[in-house]
Amino acid sequence: MSDHSPQDSSSLVKPSVLSRREVARSRLFRVESLELRFSNGAERTFERLTGGGQGIGAVMIVAMPDPDHVLLIREYAAGFDDYVLTLPKGLVDPGEDVVGAANRELMEECGFGANNIEPLIELSLAPNYMRHRMQVMLASDLYEKRLPGDEPEPLVVETHAIDDLTALLAREDFHEARAIAALYIARDKLRETAAQPPSFW
Amino acid sequence: MSDHSPQDSSSLVKPSVLSRREVARSRLFRVESLELRFSNGAERTFERLTGGGQGIGAVMIVAMPDPDHVLLIREYAAGFDDYVLTLPKGLVDPGEDVVGAANRELMEECGFGANNIEPLIELSLAPNYMRHRMQVMLASDLYEKRLPGDEPEPLVVETHAIDDLTALLAREDFHEARAIAALYIARDKLRETAAQPPSFW
Repeated sequence: MSDHSPQDSSSLVKPSVLSRREVARSRLFRVESLELRFSNGAERTFERLTGGGQGIGAVMIVAMPDPDHVLLIREYAAGFDDYVLTLPKGLVDPGEDVVGAANRELMEECGFGANNIEPLIELSLAPNYMRHRMQVMLASDLYEKRLPGDEPEPLVVETHAIDDLTALLAREDFHEARAIAALYIARDKLRETAAQPPSFW
Repeated sequence: MSDHSPQDSSSLVKPSVLSRREVARSRLFRVESLELRFSNGAERTFERLTGGGQGIGAVMIVAMPDPDHVLLIREYAAGFDDYVLTLPKGLVDPGEDVVGAANRELMEECGFGANNIEPLIELSLAPNYMRHRMQVMLASDLYEKRLPGDEPEPLVVETHAIDDLTALLAREDFHEARAIAALYIARDKLRETAAQPPSFW
């Protein structure tokens, strides 16, 4: 249900891009400055991040070793200079599709492959500042298989109950919005599927 | 519930930071390069974003005009060069606390103040690459009050049912992970509260 305001989205006119230029660049990041003119005449300078594999795509995996549990990884996060608990994820390699990338990342980061991988949701990170989108995949029917990854040290893999997200949220090391959104969506989808009568009767 | 692997988090030793330097800078962003040595001897160069108001803090607001609905805004997102549907949010100004910042942003972006604002959750964006954390606040008992903001054009404010997140997720313009995580957490909290017997009896 949605109660729209008088001005609805179809009447929105995107601002014109008056100019665009790269203002900073590092190994991973590029910053682009945009001069924008909004439809009401207001002009603003916006900055956004480009590069960083954003064009190729990225995947995050909700991998379930059984119908009640999900695999989480504990890895060093340089932004926080600390270990955090999150879902396995990574960039899609050139030539890979998202299912192949999800399975490879799962093998590299968790030591499992999955016979069943299906798309769950597409999430953005900070649409005001980057184009980045991540495909979240739901992986089940797992089998043991490890591929060497580029991690500097082996990741700690943990198994958590997907029905007890409150316990996860209470932890100090579990806070990444994309992982939280992915787990809630997966949990609700699994509950809905469980509540439906089997379709094969 | 959690079934830990043999190596548990308490045994993790953070990598040493061998060196740290700024490698790129724009008006909004600073990129820092870190030389790290992990406890197993592996060395890696990591990059992370700093600056951009990350030190001051940021708030996101789940504002409820009644117990069943939430306010969403439609704003131009430069990273996508398109309008997106998301929750009101902004940086904490110097000297403000998170409650004051949440109320100000709500007035600027939605035209409402709130008599009741309480913390809901703290979310990170991309802990591998930034320190950024956002305080999500639950706002209720709203009253009409508009403050002028720095938006280039008025934001479109919409009212959506918080119980129908599936309908929101089906939309092409609703994908920001922090907003999705915040709405699921708020919805579950409200359901839990509703399921409990009133404490004032």
